[in-house]
Amino acid sequence: MVYHTSPSPCGERFEVLYRLFCSPADLETRAQDICIEQTVEFPQDLLPPGDIPEHVVGRVEEIRTAPGEAWVRISYPVEVAGDDLVQLLNTIFGNTSLKSSVRVEKLLLTDNLLNHFHGPRFGVAGLRRLLNIPTRPLLCTAIKPLGLSPVDLAEQTYKFALGGIDIIKDDHGITDQPFARFKERVERCAEAVRRANQQTGYHTIYIPSLGVAHHRLLELAYFAKQVGAGGLMVIPALTGFDSMRMLADDDGLSLPVIMHPALLGGFLGSKEGGISHYALFGQITRLAGADVTIFPNYGGRFSFSKEECLEIAAGARDALGKLSPIFPAPAGGMTMERVPEMLELYGPSVIFLIGGGLHRQNPDLVEASRYFRNLVESI
Amino acid sequence: MVYHTSPSPCGERFEVLYRLFCSPADLETRAQDICIEQTVEFPQDLLPPGDIPEHVVGRVEEIRTAPGEAWVRISYPVEVAGDDLVQLLNTIFGNTSLKSSVRVEKLLLTDNLLNHFHGPRFGVAGLRRLLNIPTRPLLCTAIKPLGLSPVDLAEQTYKFALGGIDIIKDDHGITDQPFARFKERVERCAEAVRRANQQTGYHTIYIPSLGVAHHRLLELAYFAKQVGAGGLMVIPALTGFDSMRMLADDDGLSLPVIMHPALLGGFLGSKEGGISHYALFGQITRLAGADVTIFPNYGGRFSFSKEECLEIAAGARDALGKLSPIFPAPAGGMTMERVPEMLELYGPSVIFLIGGGLHRQNPDLVEASRYFRNLVESI
Repeated sequence: MVYHTSPSPCGERFEVLYRLFCSPADLETRAQDICIEQTVEFPQDLLPPGDIPEHVVGRVEEIRTAPGEAWVRISYPVEVAGDDLVQLLNTIFGNTSLKSSVRVEKLLLTDNLLNHFHGPRFGVAGLRRLLNIPTRPLLCTAIKPLGLSPVDLAEQTYKFALGGIDIIKDDHGITDQPFARFKERVERCAEAVRRANQQTGYHTIYIPSLGVAHHRLLELAYFAKQVGAGGLMVIPALTGFDSMRMLADDDGLSLPVIMHPALLGGFLGSKEGGISHYALFGQITRLAGADVTIFPNYGGRFSFSKEECLEIAAGARDALGKLSPIFPAPAGGMTMERVPEMLELYGPSVIFLIGGGLHRQNPDLVEASRYFRNLVESI
Repeated sequence: MVYHTSPSPCGERFEVLYRLFCSPADLETRAQDICIEQTVEFPQDLLPPGDIPEHVVGRVEEIRTAPGEAWVRISYPVEVAGDDLVQLLNTIFGNTSLKSSVRVEKLLLTDNLLNHFHGPRFGVAGLRRLLNIPTRPLLCTAIKPLGLSPVDLAEQTYKFALGGIDIIKDDHGITDQPFARFKERVERCAEAVRRANQQTGYHTIYIPSLGVAHHRLLELAYFAKQVGAGGLMVIPALTGFDSMRMLADDDGLSLPVIMHPALLGGFLGSKEGGISHYALFGQITRLAGADVTIFPNYGGRFSFSKEECLEIAAGARDALGKLSPIFPAPAGGMTMERVPEMLELYGPSVIFLIGGGLHRQNPDLVEASRYFRNLVESI
């Protein structure tokens, strides 16, 4: 068979740093296996000579070892990842995610590749401008529990806004249930925030959760924008990372996007597999255009360690081409008492997301919110 | 605060069987934790009395233990899962996926809930009718390697079809790269199959891979249909399980859907977390409307065990309301030599997906395909 392979790729390559958990003797083989699996999936000896083995196949750029640990840096041609996030993620970890003892540690992307992505529309600076909060941490809460009617949820929203919470979002389990339909809820909650802002002079925003069917995503996002929602919460493990990118990129919407991590645990895999907290909650979440990355803080209801949480914060802030840094939002059972500690750990460009803890603080939710705001303004 | 909670849920509940990896003393607490986390995410003692604690919160129906193992069966109201796959997955494992030592073993869904889902449009029987193959296993291969031009890929498709392969699909890494654009490739490959079918009288179909950006998915699926593609391959971990459901449900498309598992490894997590092979590759894949579930067979390039592969085959076939059984397609480094063994293990309602192994068999791809077909027809 004569192969009419295409013109040579331009030569630009991006890289992925993988961590491997295998014996040192197997390192080279495992690394070569990733190079093949993530590109041609084809017996190396049967590849037609020329561009494909020389350029298309992944290339081992470096193998680093330390006692009991090993990393491999592999490069891929930019063209293989196409122009979109779907194929970039596929190239980074598609089939290899089905193998064991290999973990994506960090993406090392070139500026040309990064130029395909708009990334966060607002980022830390843009969201601060929008909310008119130049320096202090932002306050966030979730309306809950699931089961309340739209009237109850809007009443709760109003009280939080009156008390000075900056961002009021849906609990992620509240979507479009028969007892709290999306459209009625979003309309009522957005109106409640408008009413409160008129009284307070604050710039509070309400952000609905878009955990909805694929074909309704854009329609409901536009509905939310139209009735006055101030942002969108997307659950990328449920609706796809590229659905978040699409919503963030949409100029007609032009709204801040918050990433919720439900079902994302899977992608993290285990200690010896999956995608690192840095890459998943930081780099990939920014590539997909989120302005805020919500994650379960250590010492709450979840099992992330302090080190993993700091990795997330670094991934949200570290240089990534021209893509803006975004807010880390530690959550998952946080309380007022944890505020000083979180401030010290994450610094002032952080969003404190306290849900049930606000109800626990004071059954009067206006007072509870004021307490939360005073606490953050005073430290 | 007076709560205007909504009318009581109808009372129908579906169940999820979770496996827990913790000490027996912690079982009850862990089970209760799932009930709260997957529904109200709210301190139990602060819940308003009535419907929410009595109906909305998950309920522990059974705790089973064996030496070193434990399962818990938890029920949720049907309404909480809404009417769609996104919220159903969210209710089953959303936040709990971020915790450790808990695994979704099996979904136990009611007929009313299952009636929300059309599931596979073709299933085993429909795909057999479409391809005019009443009883024998189906033959499938992938065009590859990544890097070939559309002309080369179409030439390869033609040879496979001439040799009698039933289903010819894109390698999943081939999407819309500059050197092999989606539209040109799909048009050429579909035409190649038409040409071969005219010569052979077979009913071979070509199935392109839809690993593309969210906003292009439906447009490119319709393009594929229009130029004669015989099915669609979807990568749900990349584009979302509900994107597969949407494409399967689309009456204008009305095409068989094949599920490719790239990046799905994450959802499986580790032995002590994630979603079981049975639920993920079987039940959830069927709920999302796939007619074929591709998985890495044991003893190939991947790390699934024989038991896990049998679980997948069971999940593809076991009763699931009125949803059709679907084809398991063991793959990932399979060769002709493995055919008799796979037939014995999976039975005749199976798809043998052999990619590189076909090139290895004979560089003349028509002859290699004929060999493959004769082999399967003769056993």
